[in-house]
Amino acid sequence: MTVPDRTAVAIVGGGPAGLLLSHLLVRQGIDSVVLESRSRERVESRQRAGILEHGTVDVLHEIGADARMNAQGMPHDGFAFHAHGEEIRVDMAALTGRGVMIWAQTEVVRDLIALRLEQGDPLLFDAEVLAVEKVDGPLGHDGEAVVRYAYEGVEHELRADVVVGCDGFHGVARRAIPAEAVRTFERVYPFSWLGILADAPPSSEELVYARHDRGFALLSMRSPSITRAYLQVPNDTDPSSWSHEAIWDELTARTGLADGSFTLGRGPITDVSVTPMRSFVAEPMRSGRLFLAGDAAHIVPPTGAKGLNLAVADVRVLAGALASWRSTGSQELLDAYSDTALRRVWRAEHFSWTMTTMLHRPPDADPFDDRLARSHLQLVASSEAYRTAIAENYRGLDLDGLRPREH
Amino acid sequence: MTVPDRTAVAIVGGGPAGLLLSHLLVRQGIDSVVLESRSRERVESRQRAGILEHGTVDVLHEIGADARMNAQGMPHDGFAFHAHGEEIRVDMAALTGRGVMIWAQTEVVRDLIALRLEQGDPLLFDAEVLAVEKVDGPLGHDGEAVVRYAYEGVEHELRADVVVGCDGFHGVARRAIPAEAVRTFERVYPFSWLGILADAPPSSEELVYARHDRGFALLSMRSPSITRAYLQVPNDTDPSSWSHEAIWDELTARTGLADGSFTLGRGPITDVSVTPMRSFVAEPMRSGRLFLAGDAAHIVPPTGAKGLNLAVADVRVLAGALASWRSTGSQELLDAYSDTALRRVWRAEHFSWTMTTMLHRPPDADPFDDRLARSHLQLVASSEAYRTAIAENYRGLDLDGLRPREH
Repeated sequence: MTVPDRTAVAIVGGGPAGLLLSHLLVRQGIDSVVLESRSRERVESRQRAGILEHGTVDVLHEIGADARMNAQGMPHDGFAFHAHGEEIRVDMAALTGRGVMIWAQTEVVRDLIALRLEQGDPLLFDAEVLAVEKVDGPLGHDGEAVVRYAYEGVEHELRADVVVGCDGFHGVARRAIPAEAVRTFERVYPFSWLGILADAPPSSEELVYARHDRGFALLSMRSPSITRAYLQVPNDTDPSSWSHEAIWDELTARTGLADGSFTLGRGPITDVSVTPMRSFVAEPMRSGRLFLAGDAAHIVPPTGAKGLNLAVADVRVLAGALASWRSTGSQELLDAYSDTALRRVWRAEHFSWTMTTMLHRPPDADPFDDRLARSHLQLVASSEAYRTAIAENYRGLDLDGLRPREH
Repeated sequence: MTVPDRTAVAIVGGGPAGLLLSHLLVRQGIDSVVLESRSRERVESRQRAGILEHGTVDVLHEIGADARMNAQGMPHDGFAFHAHGEEIRVDMAALTGRGVMIWAQTEVVRDLIALRLEQGDPLLFDAEVLAVEKVDGPLGHDGEAVVRYAYEGVEHELRADVVVGCDGFHGVARRAIPAEAVRTFERVYPFSWLGILADAPPSSEELVYARHDRGFALLSMRSPSITRAYLQVPNDTDPSSWSHEAIWDELTARTGLADGSFTLGRGPITDVSVTPMRSFVAEPMRSGRLFLAGDAAHIVPPTGAKGLNLAVADVRVLAGALASWRSTGSQELLDAYSDTALRRVWRAEHFSWTMTTMLHRPPDADPFDDRLARSHLQLVASSEAYRTAIAENYRGLDLDGLRPREH
């Protein structure tokens, strides 16, 4: 492959945000180059989220990266809370007209990569971005940003009208914005998630979010034969400190129902990992010729299943704004990008924080907070209106974050 | 008046909880004595809450203490948030079928006192309860609790089957429960409310709850010619440190709308006071022959208008349980009293905490929390389902706290 040195949109990061953006730009006739620092194998094997809002599903249909999802994805109409032994079902489809799709981010990424490579547009793996430079100044007028990157042992420069940072929380793109031009908001939680993959059919047809005196647990799935499950654990937990039997015992204890009607099946555990929980937002999501999208600009704790969906929504807004600029010359939508995205981002931050605080029990839990969380779950159980509000946020809002999506 | 020394139910505290309980017991043919430590004048002049859930309105109808409320109370179908200059109306009547009644607690208390005195049943003012004793042990079987109190310079004993502590947060009744038998939950907030009464017609037909960068403000009313309003101020604020002009200026700044469509009228301020904000719950709400109701067992910050209504609901549940015991001999409902009441109490605690954190801006506000509060208000603005859930809680739940009241 010829190493590219000029493009319209330089995309830093080949995760779901960067890859999807490249596809949306292709459909608008806009060139882009995607630079991913890791290997294709690594990117295609990372275990991440697995719950797609229908807006996310729709865009995969739109760009034609949907064949395997259509065949193997699992549409879910609802999910359940197990609140100290009592089941509360949230019937998203009945309450809001739509549900979600269970389809792993890993699989989405595989399809987006395959489609990009099939189309022959530039996507470089093992291309380490060293710096994003010359982002100051207005768009157009021959002004160019520069992305310096190392590829096959040689340092290269990629010049571009616009750079989009899709390289995650630890990426280099955000660092190109002067510290005084960005304001950050952060919350680190006093617990982490121990996550497993297991060769075991899901014990529930739908996801189960459990709150128990011993802490939070989540039962999810990757396929009809693979269970994905999580346990709240203390920060800095060593995954190897949990025996597989102890993991199953703890999942069983936390997800059980008082009436004995729920049984958790077991199977061989094939992967164990620990993920810290963080809320983070950088404002604004743009500085001159540099735009941020996805985890590069914001992190949510995974309790609300919003991370991947926020990234997808960011690049949908951004692709539309770039297309509008290219076709009309107006930068109005690009100028509005950060505000538009942040409204939705903060909605998701609030929803994720709400779900997280409602469902977890910190090791040093204040007793008042603990009672609030229990009563919060009672509100979920007793109010159809409140369940509807939760369902609206869980299944996804409009791109501007201002309304529940139309049915 | 003969000083009573024996009754079925000794009621400690002649605020709305104690007085209303006495009336509900009369209707069941159960004798009671109400002991109030302050003077009638003092009790009838204390400025407190003024928003009645319709369950509270219903019980005033039921006992016949409703004539002035019917004539002068102001039914409200909704209220508004002014969120950083944007108005969000919550149409409780449209969303849930019922609204609330604006009618001051002071007026409720006056009517309850007048009715009690008219009926000739024992109600002693300036009767200082010194101790509640012998509350251990089962009900009935000749077991009696003893209330020691000072009246007209002489110490007396009142023996009773049951004592009900309605003497507020600082009262003596709760202290009769051994410390090891009660668990308390508390949250003290880093702000207080400066409240005013003013001879000024309300500037809005409905209540206005405002959040502004400068803090919270609330516009309420006592009558068509008297405004009641509040400002978030630092703890330990000296009311006299605020000039009346500064109070009006600050209320104007915090409640204004960006489109200039809201104008706050002014008038002579007749009263200024500062109230700290607290959340507090004591569990259980019973120990042997002693039952707690209202502020003696729980405090909410006033943001959700729940304090008076919780007290009324407590004594409605308790009166029913006492009547059931007297008529059937079964203590089942009395044994369930604490759990039944606490479910509703914790709902109100959660709702009040939610409203309080959404609407206030602590002096040391964490920037992340500040953004969450703003997004929370955006959720209120954008989701009818969420507004419905707020309206259900604001206008009042069923006595068991498990459901929105039937329309």
